[in-house]
Amino acid sequence: MMKKNLKQEVENIARQAKNASSDLATLSCATKNLILKEMAAALLSRQAAILKANQKDVLKSRRLGAAFIDRLTLNEARIKQMSDSLSEIAKLKDPVDEVMRAWNAANGLSIQKVRSPIGVVAIIYESRPNVTADCIGLCFKSGNSVILRGGSEALNSNLAIFKVLQEILQKHNLAKGSINLISTADRKAVDYLLKLNDYIDVVIPRGGEELIKKVVAASRIPVIKHYKGICHVYVDEDADLNMAQDICFNAKVQRPGVCNAMESMLVHRDVAGRFLPGMLKKFQEAGVQVRGCVFTRKIAKWAKPATEQDYHTEYLDLILSVKVVDSLDAAIAHINKYGSHHSDSIVTDNNLAAAKFLKQVDSACVYLNASTRFTDGNQFGMGAEIGISTDKLHARGPMALEELTTYKYLVYGCGQVRR
Amino acid sequence: MMKKNLKQEVENIARQAKNASSDLATLSCATKNLILKEMAAALLSRQAAILKANQKDVLKSRRLGAAFIDRLTLNEARIKQMSDSLSEIAKLKDPVDEVMRAWNAANGLSIQKVRSPIGVVAIIYESRPNVTADCIGLCFKSGNSVILRGGSEALNSNLAIFKVLQEILQKHNLAKGSINLISTADRKAVDYLLKLNDYIDVVIPRGGEELIKKVVAASRIPVIKHYKGICHVYVDEDADLNMAQDICFNAKVQRPGVCNAMESMLVHRDVAGRFLPGMLKKFQEAGVQVRGCVFTRKIAKWAKPATEQDYHTEYLDLILSVKVVDSLDAAIAHINKYGSHHSDSIVTDNNLAAAKFLKQVDSACVYLNASTRFTDGNQFGMGAEIGISTDKLHARGPMALEELTTYKYLVYGCGQVRR
Repeated sequence: MMKKNLKQEVENIARQAKNASSDLATLSCATKNLILKEMAAALLSRQAAILKANQKDVLKSRRLGAAFIDRLTLNEARIKQMSDSLSEIAKLKDPVDEVMRAWNAANGLSIQKVRSPIGVVAIIYESRPNVTADCIGLCFKSGNSVILRGGSEALNSNLAIFKVLQEILQKHNLAKGSINLISTADRKAVDYLLKLNDYIDVVIPRGGEELIKKVVAASRIPVIKHYKGICHVYVDEDADLNMAQDICFNAKVQRPGVCNAMESMLVHRDVAGRFLPGMLKKFQEAGVQVRGCVFTRKIAKWAKPATEQDYHTEYLDLILSVKVVDSLDAAIAHINKYGSHHSDSIVTDNNLAAAKFLKQVDSACVYLNASTRFTDGNQFGMGAEIGISTDKLHARGPMALEELTTYKYLVYGCGQVRR
Repeated sequence: MMKKNLKQEVENIARQAKNASSDLATLSCATKNLILKEMAAALLSRQAAILKANQKDVLKSRRLGAAFIDRLTLNEARIKQMSDSLSEIAKLKDPVDEVMRAWNAANGLSIQKVRSPIGVVAIIYESRPNVTADCIGLCFKSGNSVILRGGSEALNSNLAIFKVLQEILQKHNLAKGSINLISTADRKAVDYLLKLNDYIDVVIPRGGEELIKKVVAASRIPVIKHYKGICHVYVDEDADLNMAQDICFNAKVQRPGVCNAMESMLVHRDVAGRFLPGMLKKFQEAGVQVRGCVFTRKIAKWAKPATEQDYHTEYLDLILSVKVVDSLDAAIAHINKYGSHHSDSIVTDNNLAAAKFLKQVDSACVYLNASTRFTDGNQFGMGAEIGISTDKLHARGPMALEELTTYKYLVYGCGQVRR
């Protein structure tokens, strides 16, 4: 892409995507699945080329730190995972044309509410190249054109994966615009893209809060957002304290760098004295830095004091804020105030407390007696996920094929006119 | 409201609405229905006060034209309609807590996808005072707080209706913030309101395209939009031409000023010679101004030529663009290019043509052998409507109670942790 024509190039890509979308919407499920399986096979047979391209990216990014390099690096196992993911998507139920509801109206019309593809989906993501294959698979299966814009550090890897998958589409005579990758490192491309609301129906940014805020601020296209995961576990007065310890430990420690990890633990005052000493010791041994309320610090003098800001913070690290609360109501109020409406859990054996918590906590996923770490399309049995939404409109929580669809009403008459 | 504190006042209203929303979300269906019936009765028993307030508005608006005055004016019959509408809403199925789907995941968790209220809904509308009662009824039944901002010309009417309904809520000890009316004429109030994304979950503007564009441009809150209705009827080569004539006439003439009226008629060239002469004569007799393509004007020399711009225009009047097309594909392409993705109809006896049209026309409501005029919550059997969406995300087409909800996942475990 030449810089001076960048705006035009981006617009051409978006127009192509829009044009391709109407054919994609009418592909049969059998054809889509066949193509997805061929894509899965091609990733394996073309593995050498993909690894070679990835090596270029990795070499260029040496200075960017071990965690970054880890996310960026592909190997045989990871390519196998990408391939498996496409095979899995081929097995998932096709959401397109599902009759969500059907009825006969009083005026004699027969009405069907039917799922249909959204049209053109743009995905803006960061360094992990597997997102390229996953998003192409999910958008293709749900009948949408996709425009991908990955992190510039992964450009060679993304291009290599993209080319392998595009070749399969070409073999089946599908329009090139069905899948699109913006292959310039120029950041202006994203600004141009986000103005093309005539061609693009929805933008899904995948990445840190800063990326998402930028996209939201610049976009004329609706954005489905995942801001952050400030997830809580509340240990109720009627909790099984052994179970609570397992759940809290898992939610914090098993993988602290992800959005569904616990960032804040709330404990009912009537069990705090029995629960906290053992729990906090276990956290201390696992290297978790605890920032506690006054009561917490009476039990664990080694803990730092928690500030107001701590309760607002997504650490994504082995750090935990801990607060002793007076009641279930106080726990719910705290979560609704400080949380990010992502995933929150209550540990209790009390049915009434559980019902109240599940009803009143205003989050995408509300758990009873389980770790928050399960908020994930795969764990939920959706087969794959294109992200997690902390929005309330259109999609909430893990998003997969269904969330990449809209619906339309098909209205069957036999000459009806309105009186 | 004092002008210098307006920003603060608006924020207070929004905060109140947010605070009230969690109690509204847990009201039982029986309680909500009881309150709605009392509201319906109160509109009738307090009719005199409402009519008196409305008279003030009507007097002040004398200069604004007959159509405007007609929309603004209340009378006994219209108050009866508002009251009936609330009674109808009381009878509708409560969407809140509906289990949309439930399953057991491989990890042993039992998952329910459950409908829940969105939270706080803001509605910005123009001159018709009945919108005040309708929106309060729909938002209340769906468990949402509502913030209303009506046209300043209808302020006295809206306030009178609002007060009657608020009194019923107070009688049942519900928070004042459950329903809110911004009662200043100052337009800045809307600007302030649209920035309060911490408190308000969605904005639904109801009115002309200009109002909606302003709201979209200024809002930090997601907006559900209805831009315009450029609706088509396509008369296929295999149409029953008598039926086609009835449908086209109804779609254009029965109520030309509404969004689901036909603005553009497409006719297959193989039937144009038989269909157009009688049809165009009928339109001419009904005072419809026809703007036709070259072929159309060969048949009706009196017709004006249609320009490119005509096909993009929502006349909302007795004006119609007419185009003869070469094929079903050309009709679909025309509709997807020039239409507004609202409501489009095919008249045909050919199953294959019908199936293709229904599948490929990218509109909220796609009709077979029926007038486009049926796109309406009541006609669809939804009982009431809060608007029609031409968006593809969250809600598409007529919106009623279900469209005022989101969902959450309730996840029931017995100690599960992630491995």
